[in-house]
Amino acid sequence: MFSKVTIIGFGLIGSSIAHALRANKAAGWITCADASQAVCDIVLDKKMADEVTTDIAGSVSKADLVFLCVPVGAMEDVVKMVAPNLQAGAIVSDVGSVKGLIEGIFAKHLPKGVHGIPGHPIAGTEHSGPESGFAELFKGRWFVLTPPKGADRAAVDKLNALWKSFGSQTEEMDAAYHDKTLAITSHLPHLIAYTIVDTATQLESDLQSEVIKFSASGFRDFTRIAASDPIMWRDVFLNNREAVLDILARFNEDLTQMQKAIRKGDGDMLEEVFTRTRKVRRAIIEAKQETPEDQKLKS
Amino acid sequence: MFSKVTIIGFGLIGSSIAHALRANKAAGWITCADASQAVCDIVLDKKMADEVTTDIAGSVSKADLVFLCVPVGAMEDVVKMVAPNLQAGAIVSDVGSVKGLIEGIFAKHLPKGVHGIPGHPIAGTEHSGPESGFAELFKGRWFVLTPPKGADRAAVDKLNALWKSFGSQTEEMDAAYHDKTLAITSHLPHLIAYTIVDTATQLESDLQSEVIKFSASGFRDFTRIAASDPIMWRDVFLNNREAVLDILARFNEDLTQMQKAIRKGDGDMLEEVFTRTRKVRRAIIEAKQETPEDQKLKS
Repeated sequence: MFSKVTIIGFGLIGSSIAHALRANKAAGWITCADASQAVCDIVLDKKMADEVTTDIAGSVSKADLVFLCVPVGAMEDVVKMVAPNLQAGAIVSDVGSVKGLIEGIFAKHLPKGVHGIPGHPIAGTEHSGPESGFAELFKGRWFVLTPPKGADRAAVDKLNALWKSFGSQTEEMDAAYHDKTLAITSHLPHLIAYTIVDTATQLESDLQSEVIKFSASGFRDFTRIAASDPIMWRDVFLNNREAVLDILARFNEDLTQMQKAIRKGDGDMLEEVFTRTRKVRRAIIEAKQETPEDQKLKS
Repeated sequence: MFSKVTIIGFGLIGSSIAHALRANKAAGWITCADASQAVCDIVLDKKMADEVTTDIAGSVSKADLVFLCVPVGAMEDVVKMVAPNLQAGAIVSDVGSVKGLIEGIFAKHLPKGVHGIPGHPIAGTEHSGPESGFAELFKGRWFVLTPPKGADRAAVDKLNALWKSFGSQTEEMDAAYHDKTLAITSHLPHLIAYTIVDTATQLESDLQSEVIKFSASGFRDFTRIAASDPIMWRDVFLNNREAVLDILARFNEDLTQMQKAIRKGDGDMLEEVFTRTRKVRRAIIEAKQETPEDQKLKS
């Protein structure tokens, strides 16, 4: 499908893309570019790419597809570095969790004739780094494209087809709508999980060890997402500020209402909420967005 | 170990205890008592107990061990019902998530010569009902006993040994300390999960369907615990009010601080918190309190 694909930033997502490209024989040549020599050494050692370099600017020469897999806060610098070396007709995409920002960066810095198409695979684990990737990460998961107005249809379709070959379901939407949606489904849950785990880290030390010991009673479910990459998530919150603060305000209202119900001993209100929320789980199971482990548990 | 064990309330925990007793040949006779005829029919049909009855008061005659597996809000009524029929020397225990309340109920209503020893298996799934139980539910999980001052040592040790035979690690603590600890590890996480899922249910309907679709990005992790039994959880919050409100206040402070950091664009503060919380996950993995599925994923 592509003669040369350059992947810049070889963490969980970047390395998983490389594995998926190989598994699907979708690239004639894969170049890995990463600013970290340590990362490059691992990629070279494990032969995860055909070529490995710390020269980010030079890595995109002759590439017909470039994936930017760096934290969103680093995106503008990287785009500025590679822009002069991009060939006409190349597709430049990314995998960041915030899309409005990326659309703006592409519009500002990419040369004419290069197709900037922001994208976001809704997939991940709590693990980071080049060795955490695997080809099946995107299987059965959603991939959202946010092509800007007037984007080249053939380029969009080609990128879309690639992600479908990785096993993803794909959907196109407006960047602002993506950012609003993800603020709810991803950014707020991460913020809440980080906060509750941090509340626990501030307890007296004897209570802290009890928290670890008895974590299976609920707390544990939060620690997985609170173990996600700190830099990536810092950048998400800094760059999707308005949408996150908006949904956080709604959550705060609801939490205050729950607090009041507990204080007043309003059992009817609590039961009503807890009954309503149960249905959401069923909807997720019906939409097949449960984990493979959930599915195993059921059978 | 016991000649007759009566299990009152045959939901996830009650039925799992029956399975575990059978698997360990720890009871000569198992009586299931449940107020619901529908539940009794299932238990009878699946032969999960030696005897099945809706007569809760009568079910405890000649039992040397009685497990109360009803929601904590129903506990006092059940104890009052069974008290006149308990035989001297019997052990009465429970599995509720709040222990101060149970200690008080036992002290108030159990006849002299009956050993009331509150207990709490730190185990569960999001599923409810008699068919959701399985013998291995308690394996590798903690079981906390909160014997009141002056409790009969032989009775405490016997109950302790039974839970160890189910595969649990056991620990004794004061009821008030249990309630404070569980408010952090279990009750607050459930409250937060219920609230965030409820915030999502109040969104405009198009956004709601996106939330389901893209739930794998974080939201999904909350829906599992927000699918827990509504009555059980209503009763927990009504009966561990002070400890829950106390830890909720701390969480609210921390969330306000995060909100402020996002609004001000304080990336250093966010990064610091996100780095700190990551370590908690590692501690949980080291304490082997991760799920069997987590372990599978790693290997």
